[in-house]
Amino acid sequence: MSERILTLEQAEALAASAFIRCKTRPETAHCVARALVAAEADGLKGHGLSRVPSYAAQARNGKIRGDAEPRLEMVTPALGRIDAGFGFAYPALALAEAMLAEHAPMMGLAATAIRRSHHCGVAGAPVERLAEKGMVAMLFANTPAAMAPWGGSRATFGTNPLAFACPLPGEPPIVVDLSLSKVARGNILAAKQKGQPIPEGWALDAEGRPTTDAEAALKGTMLPLGDAKGTALALMIELLAAGLTGARFAVDASSFLDDKGDPPATGQLLLAFDPALFGGEGTLAHFARLAGQIRSQPGARLPGSRRLALRAKAQKSGLTVAEALVSEIEAL
Amino acid sequence: MSERILTLEQAEALAASAFIRCKTRPETAHCVARALVAAEADGLKGHGLSRVPSYAAQARNGKIRGDAEPRLEMVTPALGRIDAGFGFAYPALALAEAMLAEHAPMMGLAATAIRRSHHCGVAGAPVERLAEKGMVAMLFANTPAAMAPWGGSRATFGTNPLAFACPLPGEPPIVVDLSLSKVARGNILAAKQKGQPIPEGWALDAEGRPTTDAEAALKGTMLPLGDAKGTALALMIELLAAGLTGARFAVDASSFLDDKGDPPATGQLLLAFDPALFGGEGTLAHFARLAGQIRSQPGARLPGSRRLALRAKAQKSGLTVAEALVSEIEAL
Repeated sequence: MSERILTLEQAEALAASAFIRCKTRPETAHCVARALVAAEADGLKGHGLSRVPSYAAQARNGKIRGDAEPRLEMVTPALGRIDAGFGFAYPALALAEAMLAEHAPMMGLAATAIRRSHHCGVAGAPVERLAEKGMVAMLFANTPAAMAPWGGSRATFGTNPLAFACPLPGEPPIVVDLSLSKVARGNILAAKQKGQPIPEGWALDAEGRPTTDAEAALKGTMLPLGDAKGTALALMIELLAAGLTGARFAVDASSFLDDKGDPPATGQLLLAFDPALFGGEGTLAHFARLAGQIRSQPGARLPGSRRLALRAKAQKSGLTVAEALVSEIEAL
Repeated sequence: MSERILTLEQAEALAASAFIRCKTRPETAHCVARALVAAEADGLKGHGLSRVPSYAAQARNGKIRGDAEPRLEMVTPALGRIDAGFGFAYPALALAEAMLAEHAPMMGLAATAIRRSHHCGVAGAPVERLAEKGMVAMLFANTPAAMAPWGGSRATFGTNPLAFACPLPGEPPIVVDLSLSKVARGNILAAKQKGQPIPEGWALDAEGRPTTDAEAALKGTMLPLGDAKGTALALMIELLAAGLTGARFAVDASSFLDDKGDPPATGQLLLAFDPALFGGEGTLAHFARLAGQIRSQPGARLPGSRRLALRAKAQKSGLTVAEALVSEIEAL
């Protein structure tokens, strides 16, 4: 398969211009493009440039409103609500981050509840940026229905990512980013785009049978991590990310992947905690003690460290992108 | 094995008097006894009356300070810090609940960070009580080191329970309560007390080998749910429950189960969110829509519902407790 090397700047310009041609405000287009390029650089291709064609198609027909501006309403000094206006999630998340970086250090903790939103992309990205500003942060997001409740048979919960980041003194934050399916749905999407099979145990087809066919898996249900506990966590995230925010539950949300139907209108709940107000000056050093306990064990590593290595490589050497994808984006 | 039927009141009086004889303030003794009896009634025997002998031994020699009074310091209107004073966790959690029930409805959300604490018992209990008052609530707690980081070999994280509760209109709350080991450590403790083996896949022995021997498992490490994702969640909970609170990490915490060493001095982070401030009057009805989606599926049930059925039975018919355990408690 033919490939092209793009610098991060070239990749951002490529994606942004596609969105701009699809009725998206230039500022929003660049915000979305930066997020996708950052995912690609971190090795998270399922949330990277592979999303450009489907995002652009949704922006073109108005399923994503490229001209939406997220609106923040402060309910209390610790709580903001954001209406993403059926637009992309990324500008809404950026607005939430700015609010939390200001208010968590005043209140000790703060929350932003985002509704009428869309695919949050790499859940670890907003929390990582907050941790780079010194906050401990958590993100809960819901996604279209993909998993059945334990014992049930109907797709009811999203794969529902949860992300967490924690600052460390003088080094990059710890970043935990996981979805509650055994694997992220983006991995199945990437396999489908490459025409590759998926391992058994990732998903069931629409009739509830195990499958290794990526396309059949996308029409069926995902298997959770940890069996019943995993679906309980997925329920928890539905109630936090869509229940508290007033967003659509997974069962009512249309796909993030095609331009059919109403906007998905899913939600995100972003929380930030200020370590200084929780525990004073010594809190970062306290975090570092646990990080040291992990790093001292051969074979163990801090979550998030592999992404950083890939990111540094991409910043130096650029991104390797399939020629077919580049052409598809250029032709949009 | 001979058994005795006790009413809930008899069981509470039995446990409380044991603690009082072991240098515990009567008010604290009853608070702890009520929590253990409630666990027993809910069918969670690992957190029930089986804990009385080990709690009492710790209170007798001062590893748990039975005369401690938890102290609350309000840092901001949304954040309280509680010093549990090396006492039982239950009075500290009760103080945290009272604070959150007052402050979350003012601020939208509020947090209480508890340090110098001990075993939190049934993690679902404090969040269930907050949900009965209309709050969405979460509890993160750390426990003595039991699980290795993924790829590592040394017990570094606790099994670290996470609990979540969400109110529903006109019926009991949804309660999610799980630990991040494949099974709760309390199950292994209960198996050991009964002299029963444990299933394979629950734990490794001290040399990292699979074991079905409960005693060997208690000396080894627990296996996480969901492999690497499970240990990432355990790390997250360490950083929330012990990092932010200034409590001892799992690696530094002594056992909850015997009277050896310093106090464990672990931590708990309790969060509450007011649905009305997040989403207005309709939020509870919104939660109910998701609950209905689950209940309409044959074979599926809402988390927490099994406990309620057992609780109702215990309230009507009392608790069935091993005669040997009753005698052991009476003899303390």
